Amino acid sequence: MTTGENATSQQAPQRRLKLGIIGCGVGAAEILPAMESMEKVELVAAADVNPRVLQTFHERYPWTKTYDTAEGLCADPDVEAVWIATPNKYHGPMAVLAANSGKHVVVEKPMATSLEEAEQMVEAAERNGVALVAGHTFGFTPPIRQMRRIMKSGELGKLQALNAWSYSDWMLRPRTGEELNINEGGGLVYRQTPHQVDTVRLLGGGLVRSVRASYGDWGPRDAPGFYVAYLEFEDGTPSIITHNGYGYFLAQELVAWGSSVGRYTMEERASIRKALANDSRDEESAKDALRIGGADEERVFRSQAHERNPWLPSDLGVVVVTCERGDMRHSPYGIYVYGDEGTRDEPVEEGPYRQEELQELYDAAVEGKPVYHNGRWGMATLEVTLAIMESQRKHEEIYLSHQVAMREDYD
Amino acid sequence: MTTGENATSQQAPQRRLKLGIIGCGVGAAEILPAMESMEKVELVAAADVNPRVLQTFHERYPWTKTYDTAEGLCADPDVEAVWIATPNKYHGPMAVLAANSGKHVVVEKPMATSLEEAEQMVEAAERNGVALVAGHTFGFTPPIRQMRRIMKSGELGKLQALNAWSYSDWMLRPRTGEELNINEGGGLVYRQTPHQVDTVRLLGGGLVRSVRASYGDWGPRDAPGFYVAYLEFEDGTPSIITHNGYGYFLAQELVAWGSSVGRYTMEERASIRKALANDSRDEESAKDALRIGGADEERVFRSQAHERNPWLPSDLGVVVVTCERGDMRHSPYGIYVYGDEGTRDEPVEEGPYRQEELQELYDAAVEGKPVYHNGRWGMATLEVTLAIMESQRKHEEIYLSHQVAMREDYD
Repeated sequence: MTTGENATSQQAPQRRLKLGIIGCGVGAAEILPAMESMEKVELVAAADVNPRVLQTFHERYPWTKTYDTAEGLCADPDVEAVWIATPNKYHGPMAVLAANSGKHVVVEKPMATSLEEAEQMVEAAERNGVALVAGHTFGFTPPIRQMRRIMKSGELGKLQALNAWSYSDWMLRPRTGEELNINEGGGLVYRQTPHQVDTVRLLGGGLVRSVRASYGDWGPRDAPGFYVAYLEFEDGTPSIITHNGYGYFLAQELVAWGSSVGRYTMEERASIRKALANDSRDEESAKDALRIGGADEERVFRSQAHERNPWLPSDLGVVVVTCERGDMRHSPYGIYVYGDEGTRDEPVEEGPYRQEELQELYDAAVEGKPVYHNGRWGMATLEVTLAIMESQRKHEEIYLSHQVAMREDYD
Repeated sequence: MTTGENATSQQAPQRRLKLGIIGCGVGAAEILPAMESMEKVELVAAADVNPRVLQTFHERYPWTKTYDTAEGLCADPDVEAVWIATPNKYHGPMAVLAANSGKHVVVEKPMATSLEEAEQMVEAAERNGVALVAGHTFGFTPPIRQMRRIMKSGELGKLQALNAWSYSDWMLRPRTGEELNINEGGGLVYRQTPHQVDTVRLLGGGLVRSVRASYGDWGPRDAPGFYVAYLEFEDGTPSIITHNGYGYFLAQELVAWGSSVGRYTMEERASIRKALANDSRDEESAKDALRIGGADEERVFRSQAHERNPWLPSDLGVVVVTCERGDMRHSPYGIYVYGDEGTRDEPVEEGPYRQEELQELYDAAVEGKPVYHNGRWGMATLEVTLAIMESQRKHEEIYLSHQVAMREDYD
């Protein structure tokens, strides 16, 4: 909910959390529909270095304040919590700034670009007594959480293996320089492993023992666009995660209700590849079209944000959870549970896309509940991401030391 | 071709290779239709310890001789080549016996149960100047070979990754004790890894550098029924192979033209699981029904042996070949080639199921051509199989030392 009015509910008006956004680019455009639809959250401010997006933001949400620096927004006493959707290299410094300003924080994936940064973020949040949510991964989504509930119920017996395979057109989407610069947290490994790692860590309990992996960089862009990793959990459970972002074969074709269309059709992908190859793509315009008020914002982020469409593998990929007495995977509107007696298609309720992270922030900041995807959790996921790159460099298995378990009471 | 008559071709009659089968069980029942349909091959003898199958064999092929020992068959001067389809623990001794008797040999997967045995087989074949074909894997099949041709053509650029995911009902099929005894080459790892390993080795060139893997044994049967392995080739190409044989989710569901039916329907699988759990399944009868003349032989092995049905993942699984500029996977009657310009469905001709191994035997034994899937090739595949088990025991990466490349002239 974005206006200043109270919800017109029969119940007592909810305490609303006042939220500011730092970094009002494509990441913000993706999360705004969830913020708008959530009664408990009141959007009050945004900060960015781009005057065009700030102006559009203010036109759309005229009661908000806009800032051209994060420092300005963090000094605003009306802001209780910040959503950090900046380029990745600023996640760490911005989160520390916000925490030191007494704001609760949601930071988008990847949490940071190094474990040192992540550690500083965790310490800043702890020192200042604010919530730090490592947000924006498919691990928060209702079907994955329902799989976890079923696992915990014991219905299918012990977890035995986790597989996630994604084939997407991620590398063909418009990209800024920093999104492709591995030294600034760019490329598919930094930007996309958090989805699959968070998901399998949530389902596998959280404690990854070791990582054997490689990644690839062979496309028209000079950045990693492929990875594959073999993870072993402390209890021996193996997990494969892989994502090929080059946009040829798409994982959408691995579900009966899918097609060969990703973000783009096959024809569009062919034409984007040509434009990238001969350097004729106007990347900045294509990127700006996805930002707030841009020509593609409505189609890509807003038109379907409140509709329930059949689930598709998209960037997470096909996830198969193998237990002792059955398997689970996504169905169009829930999950398939394959068990001893047969298979059921269990519907799973879903609110607007990505409300779960805002809910976790709200519950922690307002209700005093635990942060489940907290800084230490995000740091453990980042450790896996970094280990994938290290395993590629060393051609060997990497053993981890910053893993934490998901709290038992997470539902 | 199984009768003594010459082919009624316009061309000069082909030289026909006289073939004996050692081990006339379910494996033989599966290959017999290919032997019957192949003009170049003349089935002349069979050996087994089971009088029932020998009698049925002789009734079906009355011109053949039957033996109750392999020694008897190998002493028969009319037999030029033997097909070894015995229990796995006899593959080694039988192959050595046959080679020492001057017979060419096709041995089914797994080639042997240890590298020492495999080495003895290779040496016996070399010493006696006979062909040794490590047969019966999906690596021989026309779609995989066509993928290899396209890779070699350079159309899609360099190979970058290989993935094969199988979810089958392998563990629910009738099994003898030896098929489940890991000390006799039983269980899913020994019996099923050769399909995927041979396939990815063929596509990846052959030289696997290392293996990180685990396998699982958690079903109603006391034998491995799951594995997952991360292979790295010498050139750094990663490959994931995995197979879950417990029959809940099936890989058939990962292709648009598939269904939830494997060897069995979902209902049949549920009922087999119950019977296994309460020990009420008449496994020996179910097994015998699949042998020559058994009640299920016609339906399972013969009725569709000469029909072209749409490809299904079955025991090989979904295979995705990722190259620099595209991907490949199976289509219903060929392969999908995903490239820069879009996707084509390239038809692939297929003869009767599994004629390719007989062809390779014939070409080597009669035409003097090289054996491509020779003893050293099979030994390298076996080394990967054994490394999967070793990696599970040690929880670490295993480095290989018996790998060989596929000959460049293999087509």
